[in-house]
Amino acid sequence: MSLIIIGSVAFDAIETPFGKTDKIVGGAATYASLAASYLNKSTKIVAVVGDDFPQSDIETFTKHGIDTEGLQIKEGEKSFFWSGKYRNDMNSRDTLVTELNVLENFDPIIPESYQDCEYLLLGNLTPQVQQTVIKRLKKRPKLIVMDTMNFWMDIMMDDLLETIKMVDVLTINDEEARQLSGEYSLVKAAKKILAMGPKYLIIKKGEHGALLFSGDEVFSAPALPLAEVFDPTGAGDTFAGGFIGYMAKVETIDFTSMKNAIIYGSALASFCVEKFGAERLINLTDEEISGRIAQFVRLSAFDIAL
Amino acid sequence: MSLIIIGSVAFDAIETPFGKTDKIVGGAATYASLAASYLNKSTKIVAVVGDDFPQSDIETFTKHGIDTEGLQIKEGEKSFFWSGKYRNDMNSRDTLVTELNVLENFDPIIPESYQDCEYLLLGNLTPQVQQTVIKRLKKRPKLIVMDTMNFWMDIMMDDLLETIKMVDVLTINDEEARQLSGEYSLVKAAKKILAMGPKYLIIKKGEHGALLFSGDEVFSAPALPLAEVFDPTGAGDTFAGGFIGYMAKVETIDFTSMKNAIIYGSALASFCVEKFGAERLINLTDEEISGRIAQFVRLSAFDIAL
Repeated sequence: MSLIIIGSVAFDAIETPFGKTDKIVGGAATYASLAASYLNKSTKIVAVVGDDFPQSDIETFTKHGIDTEGLQIKEGEKSFFWSGKYRNDMNSRDTLVTELNVLENFDPIIPESYQDCEYLLLGNLTPQVQQTVIKRLKKRPKLIVMDTMNFWMDIMMDDLLETIKMVDVLTINDEEARQLSGEYSLVKAAKKILAMGPKYLIIKKGEHGALLFSGDEVFSAPALPLAEVFDPTGAGDTFAGGFIGYMAKVETIDFTSMKNAIIYGSALASFCVEKFGAERLINLTDEEISGRIAQFVRLSAFDIAL
Repeated sequence: MSLIIIGSVAFDAIETPFGKTDKIVGGAATYASLAASYLNKSTKIVAVVGDDFPQSDIETFTKHGIDTEGLQIKEGEKSFFWSGKYRNDMNSRDTLVTELNVLENFDPIIPESYQDCEYLLLGNLTPQVQQTVIKRLKKRPKLIVMDTMNFWMDIMMDDLLETIKMVDVLTINDEEARQLSGEYSLVKAAKKILAMGPKYLIIKKGEHGALLFSGDEVFSAPALPLAEVFDPTGAGDTFAGGFIGYMAKVETIDFTSMKNAIIYGSALASFCVEKFGAERLINLTDEEISGRIAQFVRLSAFDIAL
């Protein structure tokens, strides 16, 4: 089913304890759309780059069946650039450089051919831009998933709350859930956040998995214990892309489907961190993905007769 | 099946953001034996108290069918006393008072009637005392589970390693697994620790659940998301007691049984934190326990056709 993913398409330069990269392609929409492309065959991106963005990287999208009609190329401008360095525990990182460039005045254009979309992922961007996309769709999608981060909570909480009110699913990490709700307990945090509008809340806990809350229901998804996390960049975006890619594929919007969608998102994210940037997401096979899903099944299955 | 639990039986004075207690009964063997008593009908403790320990609290054990023949009462001496204060996040605590008292020269006595025991839990104590108990059993139990803590890693690592070598299952938390192995990745940590002797390793992650490692197998157990943790004291001991109580009940020592045992341990620990000290463990009903187990099943079940 037709899926739109909005987010950054950008350059990253990453340093981890394992090495460092020059400018490589990154950005929330890049990770999310590549992840979704393995599950859903009609994935379209809305994003903006400068004229420094290589044609070969745009071809990477089209090779994955990703529609790039909504990818604006701004002549004479430069793509968004982020550079960061991970600390030894790989759980914290320092931003070295942020150059907004084309993102500074990003005005998302929704091509007419995108207007029939039924699934929408609002990748991490300013809440205003996320909201603009919803408003520019003539028909509200059946499912709107929103990813965001603490940065927007720090500087534009009102806009953020207004956008959160318009979506069905919010995905944030545990610290962000605490910041957004003012509650330390994730159960209490979830209750408050669900009262802000979304019917579903996903709290990402990195190496500890993820929690899905809706009404009185809760699901705890495991994370695959990994011997090595090579580069965590993009794992959250990959998770979100895998999640909505699965939802768009199965076309059933309920708690049961979302549990599976979280497992798919987690599985794709577990590939993402194995190499620098989005490298590992470019040549995955169906066998690799189903093998990884089987690992998640084995990891969390137990059998107690009630 | 006959189960011996060794550990402290003591007084605690606890302060949390929710309130504070006077001296109440605590100690690893208290929490673990109460938890085990709901699953296994032949549970025996080895511990030591002073003559300040109330008869009514000993009767609490016997009411739960716990054999106290191995509980030494030292005339003219005082019971072990610990006092601590939890910080607002409930994940860290400051020790205010530690009075070793009778624990200082604890020489564990194994009554003759305990000698047929097939399951042994070495609750958190000095590694030498834990080792002495193993040596004083004429026949090695079928399953020896050892709980320990960072304190012994700091001050007597050699003794600890010698004891770890003698056991089948080691239960520690994530920070302790990192300290013991020198590895940040829990997968790498588990590999190193399993090479130290135990066939099974359980890494407790508090609100993030627990991991079970053995050979190349791994199981991720969820923790029940709780709106309120009233008092975390004894949760790890309760977990260990529930774990071995289940193992002694089912009498099958394999990875599959241990997965279920972890769920039972987690379920009992989730009760423990609802009230101060061991209060919540004293009057549990079978219905409450099976209801909680059902919550764990719902919490982590998903169904992906492979």
